[in-house]
Amino acid sequence: MARLRHIAVLASGGDSPGMNAATRAVVRTAIAGGAQITGIMRGYSGLVAGEFRALDARSVSNVIQTGGTILKTSRCEEFLRPEGRAKAAARLRDAGIEGLIAIGGDGTFRGLHALASEHGVAVIGVPGTIDNDVFGTDATIGFDTAANTALESIDKIRDTAASHDRIFFIEVMGRRCGALALAVGVAGGAEVILVPEVPVDLASVCGVLEEGRRRGKTSYIIVVAEGAYEGGAQAVAQAVKDRLGISYRVSVIGHIQRGGSPTAFDRTLATRLGRAAVDAILGGETDRMVGVTCGEVALVPLPDTWEKKKPVDLDLLKLTTIMSS
Amino acid sequence: MARLRHIAVLASGGDSPGMNAATRAVVRTAIAGGAQITGIMRGYSGLVAGEFRALDARSVSNVIQTGGTILKTSRCEEFLRPEGRAKAAARLRDAGIEGLIAIGGDGTFRGLHALASEHGVAVIGVPGTIDNDVFGTDATIGFDTAANTALESIDKIRDTAASHDRIFFIEVMGRRCGALALAVGVAGGAEVILVPEVPVDLASVCGVLEEGRRRGKTSYIIVVAEGAYEGGAQAVAQAVKDRLGISYRVSVIGHIQRGGSPTAFDRTLATRLGRAAVDAILGGETDRMVGVTCGEVALVPLPDTWEKKKPVDLDLLKLTTIMSS
Amino acid sequence: MARLRHIAVLASGGDSPGMNAATRAVVRTAIAGGAQITGIMRGYSGLVAGEFRALDARSVSNVIQTGGTILKTSRCEEFLRPEGRAKAAARLRDAGIEGLIAIGGDGTFRGLHALASEHGVAVIGVPGTIDNDVFGTDATIGFDTAANTALESIDKIRDTAASHDRIFFIEVMGRRCGALALAVGVAGGAEVILVPEVPVDLASVCGVLEEGRRRGKTSYIIVVAEGAYEGGAQAVAQAVKDRLGISYRVSVIGHIQRGGSPTAFDRTLATRLGRAAVDAILGGETDRMVGVTCGEVALVPLPDTWEKKKPVDLDLLKLTTIMSS
Amino acid sequence: MARLRHIAVLASGGDSPGMNAATRAVVRTAIAGGAQITGIMRGYSGLVAGEFRALDARSVSNVIQTGGTILKTSRCEEFLRPEGRAKAAARLRDAGIEGLIAIGGDGTFRGLHALASEHGVAVIGVPGTIDNDVFGTDATIGFDTAANTALESIDKIRDTAASHDRIFFIEVMGRRCGALALAVGVAGGAEVILVPEVPVDLASVCGVLEEGRRRGKTSYIIVVAEGAYEGGAQAVAQAVKDRLGISYRVSVIGHIQRGGSPTAFDRTLATRLGRAAVDAILGGETDRMVGVTCGEVALVPLPDTWEKKKPVDLDLLKLTTIMSS
Repeated sequence: MARLRHIAVLASGGDSPGMNAATRAVVRTAIAGGAQITGIMRGYSGLVAGEFRALDARSVSNVIQTGGTILKTSRCEEFLRPEGRAKAAARLRDAGIEGLIAIGGDGTFRGLHALASEHGVAVIGVPGTIDNDVFGTDATIGFDTAANTALESIDKIRDTAASHDRIFFIEVMGRRCGALALAVGVAGGAEVILVPEVPVDLASVCGVLEEGRRRGKTSYIIVVAEGAYEGGAQAVAQAVKDRLGISYRVSVIGHIQRGGSPTAFDRTLATRLGRAAVDAILGGETDRMVGVTCGEVALVPLPDTWEKKKPVDLDLLKLTTIMSS
Repeated sequence: MARLRHIAVLASGGDSPGMNAATRAVVRTAIAGGAQITGIMRGYSGLVAGEFRALDARSVSNVIQTGGTILKTSRCEEFLRPEGRAKAAARLRDAGIEGLIAIGGDGTFRGLHALASEHGVAVIGVPGTIDNDVFGTDATIGFDTAANTALESIDKIRDTAASHDRIFFIEVMGRRCGALALAVGVAGGAEVILVPEVPVDLASVCGVLEEGRRRGKTSYIIVVAEGAYEGGAQAVAQAVKDRLGISYRVSVIGHIQRGGSPTAFDRTLATRLGRAAVDAILGGETDRMVGVTCGEVALVPLPDTWEKKKPVDLDLLKLTTIMSS
Repeated sequence: MARLRHIAVLASGGDSPGMNAATRAVVRTAIAGGAQITGIMRGYSGLVAGEFRALDARSVSNVIQTGGTILKTSRCEEFLRPEGRAKAAARLRDAGIEGLIAIGGDGTFRGLHALASEHGVAVIGVPGTIDNDVFGTDATIGFDTAANTALESIDKIRDTAASHDRIFFIEVMGRRCGALALAVGVAGGAEVILVPEVPVDLASVCGVLEEGRRRGKTSYIIVVAEGAYEGGAQAVAQAVKDRLGISYRVSVIGHIQRGGSPTAFDRTLATRLGRAAVDAILGGETDRMVGVTCGEVALVPLPDTWEKKKPVDLDLLKLTTIMSS
Repeated sequence: MARLRHIAVLASGGDSPGMNAATRAVVRTAIAGGAQITGIMRGYSGLVAGEFRALDARSVSNVIQTGGTILKTSRCEEFLRPEGRAKAAARLRDAGIEGLIAIGGDGTFRGLHALASEHGVAVIGVPGTIDNDVFGTDATIGFDTAANTALESIDKIRDTAASHDRIFFIEVMGRRCGALALAVGVAGGAEVILVPEVPVDLASVCGVLEEGRRRGKTSYIIVVAEGAYEGGAQAVAQAVKDRLGISYRVSVIGHIQRGGSPTAFDRTLATRLGRAAVDAILGGETDRMVGVTCGEVALVPLPDTWEKKKPVDLDLLKLTTIMSS
């Protein structure tokens, strides 16, 4: 098979810090590898619409430290349908683009796989999402930054919690995955962490609060993944109040978790994976995600990334119990 | 009048970054001035209940950089009634405490003034609140830190807003005062700032968005002080949507605005005002707040601090209009 | 006099955080005022060489939060000589530029004044320097950010100083002005602050250390403005060691003080002054600096900015003595 | 063997962020495991001198987010000699302490191993050092924080480098190990990274600069591990200047790399390893370090930690070459 001469890169789904570092790595590795590189704006929407932009090494100067994505991103209904993907494939063909690298999460990878299966486009996925819920990679680009952002917020809230002797329910992102809640809960010294993987046991939460009250403990941090309980942190706080009659505060950390300058870890991860994606696609691979496992870059079949369930480290819940004693 | 030999310090109301720096300054200035210094825990609640703690120079080591308050704080119903204040005065008398320094906002100062008026306790107030809504001082302790905390959040949200071409309504603290919203709105490059001092003109907000759309502008930051509109940012966003049919995101920055390590400005302000409070009370002053005006420390009658209205700089709204053009 | 129709903006001297916010304000105010605006690259070097770039509102999108200067800056030998300035004036004339706004410190303003005097160019200066040593304005753009950056470093170093029971001499910027050292020294809880405005009294520094040793104090932070002592922090540390035989560590905070995202204060200041500069020059003013005094924008004759000495608040030294007791 | 009933914990060598999180985990796990826990102040110095302090769960409240070490640390000459260690063993025996957990780097572990070998004390090491140069663990506590601290400095310096078109040589910690330089060099977008593991090739460094000049590149970041070149960044900068005659700036990031609030990663790592250390020692293990390999906690014979060489990922140098193209 002839080596590809022209590839494209896009970002899709929710933005995550480090997407620009990954884009930079894709662009510069492509150029160093003698390939032409095109940026596709606004994810699959821009792919279907043909919003293409030629990129060179300077296009990605001074972006390694930035959050968001210079390629912009979106969620695209049209691409979910075969006709949308057919249009996209035609756009690539018309532009002479032989391979596509997409940075995003499992939704992005489903689309990518369908495009490859239906139209024979060479594709490689790069895991960029703050949720760290993608099978086949120990870490996704943006997770470490989001964890540190959420942690800084928890540290700030603890100032107030301790000063006012208050119970705080803090909601962090994670609709189906508790990885972020676990990471920041342990690191933030939370007394309780609630995750989607484990049904919330209100009696046990109340037990922790009552036991603490007996020992004279006056302030608490309870970290709640948004998907841990129907209605999120607000609902679980109210349910606890209904049982114990205590007052509480709720803080939803929200969108700031997606933004900000990426951490050292995320920038290095993004740079390594961006390069690996180009090496893979130029080397003839397709329908794979580049991930990192035990420090080594690995290629994973795209369907594995959403069909297989990435385990979260539930031992961290036990650790939390010991630490809050 | 004989110089006071024993004074006390407390924090009251919502905590603000720099309260510990102020407490440290009060303690060390008192000691340097030959006076005994007692800490009162949990604000007026602890005063009524007699939760006193002897302080020395080491008690306030390594706290200048911390958020929250080592003295803890609360809101106290009992102190709002004359009997509560009588109890408080008795507590002070019994402990041999001749003067009281209270760090807080206008609610704190009302209580302080009542205590002085009714029981002849020498009192000095120190303005510590993130709202910067206290007449008689250019700045309150904690405002600068809160502004920078909110600004960092806005910077992070802008990453996402720009990447997704979205309109964000961001709610910052400020129930009756738009100072924080104005500070972070201008600094955050917001297109619109809504404050309690100016009735929200929905038509004008919609006009800015429509005018921008015509010029191809795709992302917006609208900063909303929580008291600018009934229902806050969520309500104003919905009202705009009802008119224009556009989609939007809301982010409520919330409690993190109260916490965190104080800025250089807040630490220096707190240190200066804490010292000035002790100098004033030991020098025979009472019923005053220490403030800073044009860089100089000034004493202000306590009632002025809530009876007179501190103006906000509404010219910053005009500045916003020019900048978002 | 007819209103100017075409003005230019440049940055000169050491970069400071907020220069971009000021540039943005200049550009957008000019456009809102109906004037054409040109950016001059690399300060006076670019002016002499004719490195001009047309600017519009989009040229300054997304820069309010950035450090450094998008206009680039330099120090220019040629502009110090009359021939250089003649060349510069000709460049402006040839491009149809009727007024020049320069962002920088006193060196920048001397050049600006000479250009105005010799060639009748309308000029306005905007104070952008981390040193805060410019007469006629309470604050210069970048000073607040630099203070917070240096303070974060001091906070980190204190972790180590306290853990190892060490004496740290920390050098901050300030060759002729102690404003930064005073700000971060007080805010950083330093035991001693050395500034250029007060001759270093080694016996007194040693006295503080020996007195502390008697009281069991084991770690110290001594903040040294680079110009406070010949040879900086390293030299003063060695001199103290020669007297007391104690060991110490030195940390020179260095260039990081110039960079980073500007604080809320600096961004608002920059935005206000940038706008005021354009209002002034379009309104017919020249040979002035825009400054802020007690919160109000004021125009100051350029020669005043370097001929008159801005006082530093030496009372902060007394405050330091009280606080370290 | 009977389960241990009383253990102790100390920190030794250079402090690193996360030591307090590890100490907290040791204390709380010990208590949860029914063992008595004693803190030894000032590392091996305090061990020899008998500076012991009883710890309970509250002793480690509110320290998870702090830098430095509440146990203090030192380097101890006496402990390097057999008599010193004999004294230490006697101190432990006299206090009824049956096991010792030490947090530090390879120097700490050598002492720990000698103590175990010579006196039969049960010992476990916890890797806490910003250098990440300990064999047997993928990460040491503090490395991730130090990398992010150094990276923030590099980001700030780049503002100035880009604004002034300058070449910056930035020195980061790492006398014998380039891990930190590699991590921040890649993440900071450095054009060149110099590490102790690879002899510095001045001709090649000059080649990169000259090649860049040809392409119009005007600013550079060169990251230098302190041990990469005799004399550090200053010396290598001078050597480059001697060859090319270009001007440059040097920034030594220095002691701030040791301090600061630990990152989410470091806090979680510290918590996991602190708990694992107690589980190991109470479970009868000795002469081991607890490390983490591929996400799993592992026990490593102490001598391995310094006898075996931990490889650094030199492929990151190649990555740097591709990225700076």
